[in-house]
Amino acid sequence: MTSDWLQLAIPRADEACRDAALGRQGRLTKPPGALGRLEDLAVRLAALQGSETPRLDALRIVVFAADHGVAEEGVSAFPQAVTVEMIRNFARGGAAISVLARELGAELEVVDVGAAGDPGPLPGVVSQRAGAGSANFCQGPAMAPAQLDSALAAGRDAAERARAAGCRLFIGGDMGIANTTAAAALACALLGESPERLAGPGTGLDADGVRHKAEVIRKALALHGPSSDAPLEALRRLGGFEIAALAGAYLACAQAGIPVLVDGFIASSAALAALRLRPELGDWLFLAHASAEPGHARMVEALGQTPLLDLGLRLGEGSGAAVAVPLLRMACALHNGMATFDEAGVSEG
Amino acid sequence: MTSDWLQLAIPRADEACRDAALGRQGRLTKPPGALGRLEDLAVRLAALQGSETPRLDALRIVVFAADHGVAEEGVSAFPQAVTVEMIRNFARGGAAISVLARELGAELEVVDVGAAGDPGPLPGVVSQRAGAGSANFCQGPAMAPAQLDSALAAGRDAAERARAAGCRLFIGGDMGIANTTAAAALACALLGESPERLAGPGTGLDADGVRHKAEVIRKALALHGPSSDAPLEALRRLGGFEIAALAGAYLACAQAGIPVLVDGFIASSAALAALRLRPELGDWLFLAHASAEPGHARMVEALGQTPLLDLGLRLGEGSGAAVAVPLLRMACALHNGMATFDEAGVSEG
Repeated sequence: MTSDWLQLAIPRADEACRDAALGRQGRLTKPPGALGRLEDLAVRLAALQGSETPRLDALRIVVFAADHGVAEEGVSAFPQAVTVEMIRNFARGGAAISVLARELGAELEVVDVGAAGDPGPLPGVVSQRAGAGSANFCQGPAMAPAQLDSALAAGRDAAERARAAGCRLFIGGDMGIANTTAAAALACALLGESPERLAGPGTGLDADGVRHKAEVIRKALALHGPSSDAPLEALRRLGGFEIAALAGAYLACAQAGIPVLVDGFIASSAALAALRLRPELGDWLFLAHASAEPGHARMVEALGQTPLLDLGLRLGEGSGAAVAVPLLRMACALHNGMATFDEAGVSEG
Repeated sequence: MTSDWLQLAIPRADEACRDAALGRQGRLTKPPGALGRLEDLAVRLAALQGSETPRLDALRIVVFAADHGVAEEGVSAFPQAVTVEMIRNFARGGAAISVLARELGAELEVVDVGAAGDPGPLPGVVSQRAGAGSANFCQGPAMAPAQLDSALAAGRDAAERARAAGCRLFIGGDMGIANTTAAAALACALLGESPERLAGPGTGLDADGVRHKAEVIRKALALHGPSSDAPLEALRRLGGFEIAALAGAYLACAQAGIPVLVDGFIASSAALAALRLRPELGDWLFLAHASAEPGHARMVEALGQTPLLDLGLRLGEGSGAAVAVPLLRMACALHNGMATFDEAGVSEG
């Protein structure tokens, strides 16, 4: 395979910085542990950034967009044309993630990894198409091997641009009609789970629609066989271009020493595949939120993390991760900016 | 009583604005409901602010500080001197809430409602002392009637300053050694709950300390008798100056049409007392977070709201509410800034 870069070393967190950050947390003017998970976030970020004063000023959000052949099985409440229409909406600044990126002062980039239609040149949109949508995985693999390599490389390249821009935290988003079906199928294969557990309403299926979606996934799993120990093959057969790009981006970010804030259902399926390939990735992942998509809970369990937020979000685009960014920024600000007991002349307990 | 202002009218939310905001949410370029609780927040704020485009730019955080006579029963892990020391720390900008206020661009005000020692004039600190700490409620009422009126008025005056400054969201914080004991005692009286259910470690008591704290509360409840239908009397007998000030501030904010973001354990006990007095207050309250203090869950249930965050915070000062502010701001930004399906030329499902 041509994706040898996937095996490049992933650095370890800086234990000296972790210890120093833990020590500082114990000296700040608050009861020990009173800032709960915000303390853990600051300490983890200090260790990952190799700095006693972690910072999240420069932030990059990359939305990977692609279409899915499995859409023809009638698994989405929206028509496939929406993928390209939303790429235009991202470019014009009208989508949820466009608004959130402005609020956060984050750079927003859109990568067309393979929508069914080619939207043509658009401002802020990188065209790195692995095809005109993936193939219907009910009839064969979603991607040819070269397409998987191409989609993974699109993620790696986005991570490299983020690194070059001095990015301190990476958010990957997704856009792709029918991609909850692909994400659920991929997670079923990786986790050995039943389609009923992981198929959900997505953008708005009713109960019959969800049953049909689970049936479609069951058919695909029967066609492709088990692949829990072959994450790249599962990704190629059952994933999608944007899911592969997210997996590639997460791995390349970790290789470059950039922490990743994982979004919801689609992003978690990508993180799961990447984590199966390289367990060391886990140190670099923060899980932003618990998606309203019911199957997400099983993915969260497999990722071994507790989401920061639980607000019933199920939009994708990286929106749930963007919403969690202020928590990480405030964790850093508190860690860096609070006075110690000594500095403030406050008595300790 | 001299606190007749407590009975002034509380305005109702604007139903036309609520309907318009709901309509707009349905036209934004996302699947219906995909932004979960962020949609509800935007719609509630639109109705409360009487505006189709709710805004939370101007934000006021007021920390009410006071001491508690019950501290002499040995119910806190920290000495009473810390209250005044922390008032100085707020004034110098070194406390958690100081850092968070800067991050949010919020105005921070500290009101000394009655620390045991008088810190004297300090920048950003309003002195409106109801006494040199409340009395030990194991031996008699925590406050004389005039002290309760004074503490409630300190809250009302802070709300009035916030209104005059154009504040669009009010956060009240607390500082007071032993105030989890007062808050738990007050909530026990209001809810008819057992001290064991509501007493917790506070700033860091061990299991023996928590048992002792529950015993202290049990003694106080036996002395003062039931008062679930007399919230002001419960506040006077078992509360504290800063808790009364928070209750007064919440009521005055609602009277002035300013939404309130309620912090954790102490703030919730104040909200509970205020809500018992004026049930219409409920429309104006947003509950920021689930405190790590175990008894908070019972208060949350009684407040009838779902907290926005659950991060294991237990610091007070208004810090948990401050951490939740970006969620509300992003809810507004999404509501106001996203394109509609028509505007973006995106197909509906």
